[in-house]
Amino acid sequence: MGRKILIIGGVAAGPKVAARARRLDPDAQITILEKGEYISYAGCGMPYYLSGKIHDFDHLYSTAYGVKRDPEFFKAERGIDVLTGMEALAIDRANKKVTARNVATGEESVFEYDKLVLATGSNPITPPIENLNLKGVYRLNRLSDAPIIKQAMEAGEFNDVVVIGSGFIGMEAIDAVFSPMRTVTVVEFKDTMLPGILDPDLGKILYKNLYEQGLEGRFGEKVLRLEGQDGKVTKVITDKGEIPADAVVVAVGVRPNVKLAQEAGLTIGETGGILVNEYMQTSDPDIYALGDCVENTNIITGKKTLAPMATYANRQGRIVGDNVTGGKSAFKGVVGTGVLHCMGMNVARTGLGENQARDLGYDIETAMISTFDMTHYYPASNKVLLKMIVDKKTQRILGLQGIGKGEVAKRVDVVATLIYYGGTLDDLLNLDLGYAPPFSTPIDPLVHCGNTVKNKLEGIVNTYTAAEVQAKLERGDDFVLLDVRTPQQFATRNIDDPRVQQLTLGELRARLADVPKDKEIVTVCAMGSRAYEASRILKGAGFKDVKLMEAGMEGWPYDME
Amino acid sequence: MGRKILIIGGVAAGPKVAARARRLDPDAQITILEKGEYISYAGCGMPYYLSGKIHDFDHLYSTAYGVKRDPEFFKAERGIDVLTGMEALAIDRANKKVTARNVATGEESVFEYDKLVLATGSNPITPPIENLNLKGVYRLNRLSDAPIIKQAMEAGEFNDVVVIGSGFIGMEAIDAVFSPMRTVTVVEFKDTMLPGILDPDLGKILYKNLYEQGLEGRFGEKVLRLEGQDGKVTKVITDKGEIPADAVVVAVGVRPNVKLAQEAGLTIGETGGILVNEYMQTSDPDIYALGDCVENTNIITGKKTLAPMATYANRQGRIVGDNVTGGKSAFKGVVGTGVLHCMGMNVARTGLGENQARDLGYDIETAMISTFDMTHYYPASNKVLLKMIVDKKTQRILGLQGIGKGEVAKRVDVVATLIYYGGTLDDLLNLDLGYAPPFSTPIDPLVHCGNTVKNKLEGIVNTYTAAEVQAKLERGDDFVLLDVRTPQQFATRNIDDPRVQQLTLGELRARLADVPKDKEIVTVCAMGSRAYEASRILKGAGFKDVKLMEAGMEGWPYDME
Repeated sequence: MGRKILIIGGVAAGPKVAARARRLDPDAQITILEKGEYISYAGCGMPYYLSGKIHDFDHLYSTAYGVKRDPEFFKAERGIDVLTGMEALAIDRANKKVTARNVATGEESVFEYDKLVLATGSNPITPPIENLNLKGVYRLNRLSDAPIIKQAMEAGEFNDVVVIGSGFIGMEAIDAVFSPMRTVTVVEFKDTMLPGILDPDLGKILYKNLYEQGLEGRFGEKVLRLEGQDGKVTKVITDKGEIPADAVVVAVGVRPNVKLAQEAGLTIGETGGILVNEYMQTSDPDIYALGDCVENTNIITGKKTLAPMATYANRQGRIVGDNVTGGKSAFKGVVGTGVLHCMGMNVARTGLGENQARDLGYDIETAMISTFDMTHYYPASNKVLLKMIVDKKTQRILGLQGIGKGEVAKRVDVVATLIYYGGTLDDLLNLDLGYAPPFSTPIDPLVHCGNTVKNKLEGIVNTYTAAEVQAKLERGDDFVLLDVRTPQQFATRNIDDPRVQQLTLGELRARLADVPKDKEIVTVCAMGSRAYEASRILKGAGFKDVKLMEAGMEGWPYDME
Repeated sequence: MGRKILIIGGVAAGPKVAARARRLDPDAQITILEKGEYISYAGCGMPYYLSGKIHDFDHLYSTAYGVKRDPEFFKAERGIDVLTGMEALAIDRANKKVTARNVATGEESVFEYDKLVLATGSNPITPPIENLNLKGVYRLNRLSDAPIIKQAMEAGEFNDVVVIGSGFIGMEAIDAVFSPMRTVTVVEFKDTMLPGILDPDLGKILYKNLYEQGLEGRFGEKVLRLEGQDGKVTKVITDKGEIPADAVVVAVGVRPNVKLAQEAGLTIGETGGILVNEYMQTSDPDIYALGDCVENTNIITGKKTLAPMATYANRQGRIVGDNVTGGKSAFKGVVGTGVLHCMGMNVARTGLGENQARDLGYDIETAMISTFDMTHYYPASNKVLLKMIVDKKTQRILGLQGIGKGEVAKRVDVVATLIYYGGTLDDLLNLDLGYAPPFSTPIDPLVHCGNTVKNKLEGIVNTYTAAEVQAKLERGDDFVLLDVRTPQQFATRNIDDPRVQQLTLGELRARLADVPKDKEIVTVCAMGSRAYEASRILKGAGFKDVKLMEAGMEGWPYDME
């Protein structure tokens, strides 16, 4: 008889461990215990099922070649025993046994192991909100949540929808339920959208875009309680007011499920996840843990962090599969990459955010640019905003964030790779990235962003962020905001303030006398490149105090009605 | 008066140098001499203009904000003097002067310089083919070529089109002119499509795909001469036959234009390009050169190479702009990245190809996989083929090639970044790449490809390539090609040979007795993953000689009618 590998948890990480272990050790006895009904499913696919992009619920737990990943599949194709509806109750480490209970019958059984794998995942956080048990209140965490929401949507019970939380799950929920036929409001406790994922400046611009499509956002607002009638939710009460609601989606994040590990005396880390070494071994060398239930190491900071993402669960699954069958593979950590798509906008980020970097003591420079994701003359091109965070001393790239209708995930993947190596701006500028009109620009937007940071570091360009310009306007600073777009472009959308002066770039060299030489000049255009040219012209002409506004009007979120 | 910066060449590299130099030095006198009519244009955009994706010819030389980049623009916005129709004749290095001739009037002028920049580009190679001067014979190298072809297409003179050459320009020409209403034939001297860019295995599969859309290809065939009637081309005569043609596009590559440099006594490198150091300085420290006319260093091999690509011209432009104004920026070299889009297929490559690596003495392992570019259940997902080349000893990644309707450029950019750092398979497996269903799979296709190479290196999986299987079939080897797809899938398309046996994966464990134990077994499926499972099952069951065919039927090009 081969070695006994017992896996607790059958959603993502567990089945991956089992599959890898099976390939490496045909003789092993591999068993998965899963409390729920579904196994090996694509939780990340739920929003697309709800929005109708994916028609068939079964697709969420089928292989690429169309076979349902149910216990029969695991037995027939993989030789793996999967027991669903089986809840692990306790680990007897001394005797290497796990007690489990059949959820339906209550019957208890004992499973022996040589190697035990904890893939117990995470539990949705229940926020301190009164009346969450009302009808019409939903979650979007487990696969079984999806058909419940779908049914309610189809029954016309999603008209005034409130999504609580604008993290990854909240944004996925918004993407899933948003429709011009519904009123969708997101309530976020923090001040901006996707807090902790996007810096506030990008969060604001993202929200501006979604707002223009019809999403309502309430930021810096705390949900206190729900109110209902006949047991059904009718209102969301916040610290600032109330919102009518016939459907509420609670999406305030997850917490590692460590109960079993904790009760077995395994070490729990400072973040609340199970502590593991780089081989994904817990404090008991015969017990491995992975996925949402463990804590990870951030490669940049060396600090522990929670990272409940499907990609880590899967990649760690391969590593644990190696190690429970005698291998020695290592998971080096995470750099904090995340991507999402919501209401036509792509969002991607990696590494440290601006505030995160400052809080860690880095002396940083940043730049935000607006540009096209491929040559502007190519019809499929779209705009993107990229923001890079760089350590001043070493010119090491610490982070990148991008939003837009255009391609940002590629740029984030390249920067995630750079960060893995501690890459600098000079490294970025020397990367041999692919260029052809349908894919990129001759100088990739990412490199353009790096060049801008470099220009700032070298004093070639001086900038204000949109937030800084807004603060100057509000403070009543005396300066000229020189908009160098054409009059037609200016008329379409501009910053409404007497300090704004329009003067087309092409005329600037000839009309320098029209620009006050004694005042601070801040140049602005649509996306930033003309403002840059204008600032160089003015400096060349002896203007002393010239700056440009980063990312132009594309980066300006302060004119929402 | 500021320093005199004289730039010869106004297509891509030259204007970039000028723009950067102007930003850094407002006082410099910057002059560009350009022989042709158009400046600062997007040569890469020509195919899209021809195919109608770009309607307006002017877009090819306009800024992102819609202003034509003509001499007036350069003067007004940039303070740069651009002289078109001005051909540089000779460099007087001792006196730092350049003689040039007005192409229209024949008048000669002399231009002084402090720093001279050679951006003389490349010339299309004229192959030894008779009668290239017939009417109906076209090039696709200079912007002025585009309207000529466009006009001929609109005049109905593109019915039987022959494209000579299937390198980057040839493929762009195919993409531009292909239509179901035309007969388009590509004639390639080498044995496969995109030789030197794609390995033959991928080249064959790419061609199979384009062939199924209607493209005719003739490989390993040499064009000897053209024949015509009334001065107009009617036939292409090759060493193997003839092809009717009313339009011929000659696309056999380019050669660096080094005449001026050579005559001035500057060192020309072994490859035929102008020799430059990492600061893009020629053998005369006051003369810089960049773009198509110089030779580059391959970062992996350290060898000199020609790399006539727009992205290098632009990136080097920034570096030369720095250095002619007193800076010291370096261009470290190229790794050989290239991307293109042709007839709905994306093609991308970086680093060394398989044969290239072997020729350089590397002991390599490769893997080809077929997979989806994002989660298979996401409706926008598409298939891709990826092939990775890895150095066995160090597990260093040497190259990646990808083709498919799906996303391959992102994966190539990540590998180009890895290669820059000498990255290994372990590094790849530890990259924190972004995952969400619209962007990727939980384990990115690229990482999946790396895992496959690793499995091969560790003996966990043994494979044959499609070419090896085809050779076995042709040789008459005695083996079983075990197709583990369903009977329905098998019926749709299969390899027609008595050695092929169909046995669905889900039944394999129960029907092991049906598989001959004394023969070599090669498993095959649609894309490779079921074949992998099947091979592990067979090995686990004691079958000694089991391999799988890489990339499944997706990687099989040998059943073209």
